[in-house]
Formats: sequence, structure tokens, C-alpha cells
Amino acid sequence: MPDNGPYSNYRLTVRLSLENKPGVFASVADLLAKEKVNLGAIDIVEVTKEKMIRDITFDAASDAHGKKLIDRLNALEKVKVVSASDRIFLLHLGGKIRVEGKFPIKTRNQLSMAYTPGVARVSQAIAEDPSKVYALTVKSNSVAIVSDGSAVLGLGNLGPAAALPVMEGKAMLFKEFAGIDAWPICLATQDVDEIVNTVKNIAPVFGGINLEDISAPRCFEIERRLKAILDIPVMHDDQHGTAVVLLAALKNALKVVKKDIHKVRIVVNGVGAAGIACCQILLTGGAQRLFACNRKGVVYASESGLIRNDLLPGIRENEPIMTLREALSGADVFIGLSAGNILSVRDLQLMKKERIVFAMANPDPEVNPNEALKVCRIFATGRSDFPNQINNALAFPGIFRGALDVRARQINEAMKLAASEVIAGLISDEQLGEEYIMPSIFDKRVVAAVSRAVAQAAIKTQTAREKEPKR
Amino acid sequence: MPDNGPYSNYRLTVRLSLENKPGVFASVADLLAKEKVNLGAIDIVEVTKEKMIRDITFDAASDAHGKKLIDRLNALEKVKVVSASDRIFLLHLGGKIRVEGKFPIKTRNQLSMAYTPGVARVSQAIAEDPSKVYALTVKSNSVAIVSDGSAVLGLGNLGPAAALPVMEGKAMLFKEFAGIDAWPICLATQDVDEIVNTVKNIAPVFGGINLEDISAPRCFEIERRLKAILDIPVMHDDQHGTAVVLLAALKNALKVVKKDIHKVRIVVNGVGAAGIACCQILLTGGAQRLFACNRKGVVYASESGLIRNDLLPGIRENEPIMTLREALSGADVFIGLSAGNILSVRDLQLMKKERIVFAMANPDPEVNPNEALKVCRIFATGRSDFPNQINNALAFPGIFRGALDVRARQINEAMKLAASEVIAGLISDEQLGEEYIMPSIFDKRVVAAVSRAVAQAAIKTQTAREKEPKR
Repeated sequence: MPDNGPYSNYRLTVRLSLENKPGVFASVADLLAKEKVNLGAIDIVEVTKEKMIRDITFDAASDAHGKKLIDRLNALEKVKVVSASDRIFLLHLGGKIRVEGKFPIKTRNQLSMAYTPGVARVSQAIAEDPSKVYALTVKSNSVAIVSDGSAVLGLGNLGPAAALPVMEGKAMLFKEFAGIDAWPICLATQDVDEIVNTVKNIAPVFGGINLEDISAPRCFEIERRLKAILDIPVMHDDQHGTAVVLLAALKNALKVVKKDIHKVRIVVNGVGAAGIACCQILLTGGAQRLFACNRKGVVYASESGLIRNDLLPGIRENEPIMTLREALSGADVFIGLSAGNILSVRDLQLMKKERIVFAMANPDPEVNPNEALKVCRIFATGRSDFPNQINNALAFPGIFRGALDVRARQINEAMKLAASEVIAGLISDEQLGEEYIMPSIFDKRVVAAVSRAVAQAAIKTQTAREKEPKR
Repeated sequence: MPDNGPYSNYRLTVRLSLENKPGVFASVADLLAKEKVNLGAIDIVEVTKEKMIRDITFDAASDAHGKKLIDRLNALEKVKVVSASDRIFLLHLGGKIRVEGKFPIKTRNQLSMAYTPGVARVSQAIAEDPSKVYALTVKSNSVAIVSDGSAVLGLGNLGPAAALPVMEGKAMLFKEFAGIDAWPICLATQDVDEIVNTVKNIAPVFGGINLEDISAPRCFEIERRLKAILDIPVMHDDQHGTAVVLLAALKNALKVVKKDIHKVRIVVNGVGAAGIACCQILLTGGAQRLFACNRKGVVYASESGLIRNDLLPGIRENEPIMTLREALSGADVFIGLSAGNILSVRDLQLMKKERIVFAMANPDPEVNPNEALKVCRIFATGRSDFPNQINNALAFPGIFRGALDVRARQINEAMKLAASEVIAGLISDEQLGEEYIMPSIFDKRVVAAVSRAVAQAAIKTQTAREKEPKR
């Protein structure tokens, strides 16, 4: 795949047939300049006396803008749009993943060892000693990425087919970052019992289960029940991947401003799957003054005299005890896991100075990032085009790698906390600063460090089947 | 994977530490010669003044023989066995398949197109038009290989973990022969309702379902119900793959002996999944004098005056009307899908001359092949070490390839018959002979021809979503 500079969601390649006369291409360039598109490669495909075929790649601002541009190009004199293709859709043609054999089957000898009759001895060995399934099959390195399509990205309940491209992308990340063979399982049901049963039934092939894009509150029950039934790790990444990375980011941010997690007032906005998990890990990590809000206001607070009940799953039903803005007054930390543009800079100014604001809604953060940057000591988002990206791709590849390496039975709190700690620790005290609290997801050290820490934690908490990592 | 000559189920590589003195290696060679092992590669790993480390690869006759050899080598003076490894088990370490992304994710740009935020547009496009899931995801090329481990090869009910190496091997065949991305699904249940439900729930990711190694009679109901629920092809390969290939082989065999399928007396022994399916396709293919036997005797006959009821699933419960040997008297064709060594040459001699005998039990055919070859005009087995191998790897890769290419809703009788016909037709009249009735599974023409014929049949019978193959 060619990689032409910075990313655009609407990169088009348009094939134009131009009359081969002076000034014709200039009219194209002129139009694109006026439309302020980010112009990429320009290739000549074919030239005759009469005409010239060119491929032009450019970034439009939106889907509608792309369509308008194509119409305008077509309307130019002596110019015809032969075809227009959308880079992202081109990349998805036929899917993004494939299954490969680890060696070829070109001869009868190879066939007889990989399949019948030779494979019969391997099957018998596993039947006699079921623990050998790890050594002798793909289970040792495989993860199912399970979604019911009920909460696809931030887009809502799009169903299993629409979830599939996301799960394929996630499978690519598993492979690229952690060498894990992950396969998407998109379910034709959104019933909790059916999901639990189905995942239980397909579990023999997998060394781990990554739940993904399942809406709250069903995701809590599904994860809890699967963890209870299965003897392989089950983790809902939207919850725990996000929580692990958030805690790491907060630890480093507090280090920069020299504040103590036990003392700071933290406001979490959003009590969906990620919001609840973040609250939980913050409490485990030592937070004592935590306020969680839904759309109506604060529905959970850990300070004395305020609501204090189990975080799951009841709190979204609570009557609010104060507004988000009241909670923000005097707060040290704001963590947004909600929706875009719900706060103004004025709202942030209700907080103490030395503000730490993690506005993680996607694609638009809870507050305009350009403005927020001016009033915050530390500002982070889920996006890659601002400093301090909080991205769960920092956590899940290493967490599952570590769990698989010791053939863990589960991913427990100790393993998640170990992951969080080691991610934070990758930034040394000298490097640490307002604009550098988290390592890059392309930093090769991340998966190695996280998987090692997670494996050790699994061994220490006796959920590992192996005494040392197998890889 | 190195490929040292003919296949052995018990190929060992043994590392020996030998005193570096004349005559020591000779004692090893002498022992192996006496034990009549098939000696393969001999490599020197390390040489010092005192000792020599050698790797020796050889084929033992059995597991027990291998162990005995290692003990005897160890007992030799000045020889020590450092390690011994079994080639087949070595090949299986860590599993035989992997999942790969089709392009790397090394930059933020690539990440943003394969995963968030770019993938969101693809998900939305599928949500708006669900038929786009074929164009834009792996569904267009993926097959689930589903087993409950209840009938693993000929080994019986070994369960899902022990079935996994077989399903991985099958996934390799799907890729190698037909370019299909197949993923094993081994189920932690053997309950029919649970299996049907589970497969229904995971179907959105797959373009087809290959049922495998599920015991009769449950396999019939599972296949029937899944075909009724799902809008993608479902095929139990043990039944229909075998049946398609069998019919092709019989057609060509009858051509050689110049007999008519409508007139010949055919005895099928074994009414498990494959036996029943073979009977069905033979009837569809024109057979009129068909006798099917279980262990007790003939439980189905299509000749007038004898039992004639639906083949499924009742016949195994019928009281036998005659013995296998009575059925064989005057038979033209014997088809064995049962167990090894249940017939003698004398039994075969009850048949008419010009005998056609397909003894397909694995690993040992129904009759000793060396003896049977002498009394049969045409003799075939499921094995690769005799002429005329009847192997369902001739059918299933092309059948699924053809079905996926036109995005078929099912695999129907017309598609199976088309596959059978085209497989038979690959042997020209000039080539056709007693020892060449079937193409090799490594014959490149097979998948191309079968998939084309199957795709055309799907289009003709209006089960295809596409008007022409998409590949």
C-alpha cells in the first residue's frame, strides 16, 4: 500500500481524460487549488495526439465535498472524469485479512503429515492429554475478536456485517503489534444468553477472547459470565484497554504537575463501557475523590456523604446529585469518554489551575482542542493529530501477548495494573513533559514491555499455566 | 519444510553423541540396517576431538518401533541419544495456520485507513447496503470449518481440542488448493440445537460453512437445519465431498468396463454419513439396483420388492433383509465406507467378473489391497499408495471456490452433480484405464474446472447472487 503523506479520510484518486491542448490541465489544477484540496500524486497513464489520461490523487474535506469536486471536474471544458476511486474503499476490497498455512502442501508427503493420515497421531495425543492442544495447535497464539455490532466505533448499533471491517482492522493490529493470530467473530445475535453460549461453544480454538464494540450495560454481564465459564482470558477491550491506558496517562500527567492521585478531584464524564471501566481502574489505582457523570449530571461520587454504591451496572440509573459543571468546580482532572463538543473553555476554567484534561471522545473531543490547549497544563485526546494520544492500541496487544505467552486462564486486575504501570514507565522522568506523557503506539518497546509485565503478573497471581513465558 | 522422499507416519530425527573413534558410527548404521528402517538424512552437528554429534533421520514402522529403536541406540556402547524428535509433531508445534493482514500497518496513515477513523466509512456503507459486506470484507472469501469433534477422522469421538489439528490441516488445503481463507471452529458442544444456534450466530463473517467430522445421524439434522436458516452455502464434506468424488470415480470405472449405471448391481457397505450421501448421489446419478448394508446386513435396497423408504435417517434402524455376502452375489460394484479388513478375496469372488471394488475405509481398506488387486478389474481406495485414490480433496476446494465466486446462497444438488461430472471428465477417453480413473489431487486443472462448473450450475439454478464469477 502506498503511503502518501498525512492521513485523510476522503482521499480520492480520479482518472481524467483531458484534451491534449495547452491550458487544459491548468484548468484542473486551478479548480483544485480554489477548492483548497490537499493535492497528492499526479500520474500520466496514457498520451495520444488527441488526449491525455491522468490519475490525480487528492484529499477532499468530506464525502459530499468529494462528490462535488468530481462534478466540477466533469463540468470543466475538455475534461472528462473516467473513473473515481476512494482509497479507503479500495483498500477494503475483498477484506483486509487472510489465513495462511505455515508451510506449503505441494507433495503427498507434506499432505500426509499436515492432514490425514499423519495428523491422526497429533489428534490422539491431544485426546490423551488435552493440555497438549496448546503446544500442537493454533490455540497457543489465537484470539477471537467478538462483536455483536451493537456499538460499532462511535456509530451505534450497525449490526454484525458493518462491524466486520472494524474487527478485521483489529485483527491486523493484533498481528502487526503482537504477532497474534486473531480472527473476527461478528455475531448474528444481540441477546446476552445467546452471545455467552456462542462464545463458550467456539472457545476451544482460541487462547483468548477479545470482546469489542458491545454496548453497555450488556457488555458487563457478557464479560462477567464468560470470565466465570471459560478457562481462557476474556477482556472487553473498549472497557479495559481504555482503562489501562488512561491510568498510565493520568499517572504520568500527575507526575508532571506533581500531584497525588489520592488527593486530586477527578471528574469522569460518560458512564458507558469505557467510562465505568476507567472509574474502576482509577479507584483501584488510588483515586479517592472521583465524580462520574452521565448526560443528566453526577451519578456517582466516591467522596463521603455522596452516592456510593457499586459501580456496575446500576449507576446510570441514579438520580443526579449535582451538575457536571458543579463537579468541575475545583476539579484537578477532567476525563471525557462521552461526546464531542459538550464543554467550553469557560467550563474548563471552573477547574483548578494546572488543569489536566483528557478529552477522549472520537472523532471530536469533548472540547475544541485548539482552544483547550491554551488553558490546560496537560491536554490529551484519542486523536493522533494532537500531542498526547490516549490509544488502547498501547495496551491490548501486549496484554494478550503476555497472557498467551504464559497460557493464562484469565486477565485479572493485577495483569491490567502491571500493564498500566509499565506503559507509564516507558517515559523516563527526563523525557516526561506536558506534551509527552504517553509513548507512541509505534514504539517497539511497548508490546515487549507490556507483555513481559503482564506475563509476570499472571505467574505471580497464579493464573498462568506456565512458569515462564513460552515465547 | 524439507520433504525427504516418501511419506512415513513415524519419521524420527535423533541426535546422537558418538565417541569420536573408528567403528562407532558403523555400529549405529549396523543397528538401523538390522531393524530395516528407511534411513534419511545424516547430518554432522558438531565435532570435537572426543566426540561427534550427528542428527539422523529415519522412518520407524510404528510408535512402539520408534521407541524401541531409541532404546537400542542408547544401549550401544559409546553412543548416547541426546534428543529424539518426531517430524509430524515438530510440524505441528504452535499450530499450522496463521492470520495475516493483507498490507502492513507501519504508519499512522495506514492505521487510519485500516482501522479508526477511516474504517468508519466502510462500516457505514455496509450498514446502509448490507450486500456490500461481500465486496468490502473477508466474507467474500472465507469458510468456517465446523466440527464438534464427534467423529474425528476414523478415530471416533475425540472432542473439539483433538479435532483442531485436523481442521487446521483442512484450512491449509482450502488455501493451497483454492485460495480460500478458512478458519477452524471446533465446538464445545455436541448438542444439535446448540450447534445449529452457534453456527447461525457466527455466520455473518463467513461466505460458506464446511461441516466436518460430525457423527451420524446428528450430522444430517445439523446440515438440514443450517441449510434452511442460512443464506450462505453449508456442506458436510464427509458426506457430499466423498459422494461427489465417488460418483465421478464410478462413472469412469463403468466407462472402462463398458457397463451402464442404470443396470449394474451396486453394494454399498457402511451407512454412516458418507455411506448415506454416496447412496443418495448414486440414486440421483441413475443407479437403480442399489443395496446398502450396515454391520448386520442389507438395510436398504432400491430393487422392487425390497425395502424402499427414505434414505434419511431411518435406514440404520431397519431389520436386515439379507447378508452382505448375499448382496455381493452377482454384484458388479462394491463400495466400502465402513471398516478395515472385513472382506476376503473369496467374498469378492461372489461378485460378477469385471469387478469394480472401491474399498475406501481408512487407514486400512475393507479388503487387503494387494490381494484384491489380483481379482478386481478396477480397484480403488482412499489411500495414496495404491492406484485410483478416491479423495474428497478433489471436490471440496473447487465446490466452495465456485460457490464463493458467485456468492451462492447454497450448494445444491445441481452444483454437486456438476462437480462430479467435471472431475470425471478430466480423464480423457484415451487416458482412461483400470489404473487411472481419477485425476491427482495435485492436478492444477481440478479446482479450476470444478469451480467453473459449480459456479455455472449455481447461476443456472438461481442460487447465485452474481451473474458471473467474481474472480
